Amino acid sequence: MDAIARLSQALRCLPGVGPKSAQRMVYHLLRGKRDKGTHLAQCLQEAMQKVVSCERCHAFTETPLCAICSNNARDPSLLCIVDSPIDILAIESSQAFKGSYFVLHGKISPLDGLGPEEIGLTKLQARVQAEPIDEIIVALSPSAETHATMHFIHQFLAPFSVKISQLAQGIPSGGELEYMDGSTIISALNNRALVDA
Amino acid sequence: MDAIARLSQALRCLPGVGPKSAQRMVYHLLRGKRDKGTHLAQCLQEAMQKVVSCERCHAFTETPLCAICSNNARDPSLLCIVDSPIDILAIESSQAFKGSYFVLHGKISPLDGLGPEEIGLTKLQARVQAEPIDEIIVALSPSAETHATMHFIHQFLAPFSVKISQLAQGIPSGGELEYMDGSTIISALNNRALVDA
Repeated sequence: MDAIARLSQALRCLPGVGPKSAQRMVYHLLRGKRDKGTHLAQCLQEAMQKVVSCERCHAFTETPLCAICSNNARDPSLLCIVDSPIDILAIESSQAFKGSYFVLHGKISPLDGLGPEEIGLTKLQARVQAEPIDEIIVALSPSAETHATMHFIHQFLAPFSVKISQLAQGIPSGGELEYMDGSTIISALNNRALVDA
Repeated sequence: MDAIARLSQALRCLPGVGPKSAQRMVYHLLRGKRDKGTHLAQCLQEAMQKVVSCERCHAFTETPLCAICSNNARDPSLLCIVDSPIDILAIESSQAFKGSYFVLHGKISPLDGLGPEEIGLTKLQARVQAEPIDEIIVALSPSAETHATMHFIHQFLAPFSVKISQLAQGIPSGGELEYMDGSTIISALNNRALVDA
C-alpha cells in the first residue's frame, strides 16, 4: 500500500467519511493544500496527546479541571448529566444552563459489560455527596438504553435529597409534525402544556 | 484557542467538512479513537512529504515515474488528457483505457493567469513530438473553461499528425432524463446514435 492509499484508509476513521470522500480529501490536500495537510497532522498529533478528561466532570480539557469546572461563577446547585462531551457544547451554545456537568462513560448496557460502576455512577454519587447539588438534570439523548440508565441514576441517588429531572421530550423547534415518529408524538401529547389566554 | 478548537479549525481544510462535522470528528477521535487519530496524523505527514508529481504525466506518485508511466504493457499510441490526478482513478476503474495520461495544471483561465504555457501545453507538445502517439483523448470535465482549453490543445498539436478526440457527452448510465439539464440533452440529441435492427 502506498502513502496515498494509507492516508485514504486512515481518513476513514473520521465519522461520515467513506472511501470516495476519503479519496477526494487526499487528492484535495495533495493538490496545492500541502501546508494545510501538514498543519492538520500537527493539530491532530497535539490534540490526541494533550487533551485529557476533566477530573471532575470528564469533559475534554487540556488542564486537570475544565474551564466550566474551574469557573466559580457557575451555579453549584445544578448538575447536568450528559452522554458525551460533545453534548456539553450543544447545551452551552443555548446559554440557558449555568450549572456544571457530569459526562457518563456511555449508557448502561449489560451486553457490552457496561454496568452502573463502569459508566461512572459511583463517581456521580460521590459528587452528589460532596457538593451542594439541589437538582440533577438528566440530558441523555433518548434511546433504548436511556431507560435503564435513568433507572440506575435514580437508584444511586435515592439516599440523597436531590431532585432529578430530565429534558422535555416533544416536537423540536422548526420540526414538521408530518415527519415526527410515533414515540415523539406520544411524548408531545403526554407532556402537552396548557396555553394561557 | 485550545487544542480542540485548533484541530476543529484545521479539519475544515478537508472538502465537505464544515464547522459542525469538524467538531463531531474531533470528539469522535478523542473518545476512544486516539490511536487512530495519531495514525491519521502520521499518514498525513507522510503523504504530504513523500508524494510528488510524476515527471512524465504529472499524476501523484512516490517515485519519479508513476506506476502507469513505468508500465511497459500500456499502449504508447493513446494519450488521455485529464484535469486532475483524481480523474485518472475514475478512468482506470473503468478498465477501458490502456494508454497513458497527461494531467493539465488546470484549465485555460486568463483571469487567473493560466495560459497554455502555465497549464502545461508546451510539455504536452514535447511529449507528442517525442512519443509514438496516434490519438489524444481529451477527458476534461465539461465546464466554461473547457472550450478555450480545447481550442489551445488543437492549436498546440496542429503541427503533428495526431488525432484528437473527446469523451462523448450525453446521458450518464442510470441518469434520469427528467433531471438532466438542457445542455446535456442538447449534446445527447446532437450525438445520437442510430440503433441497428
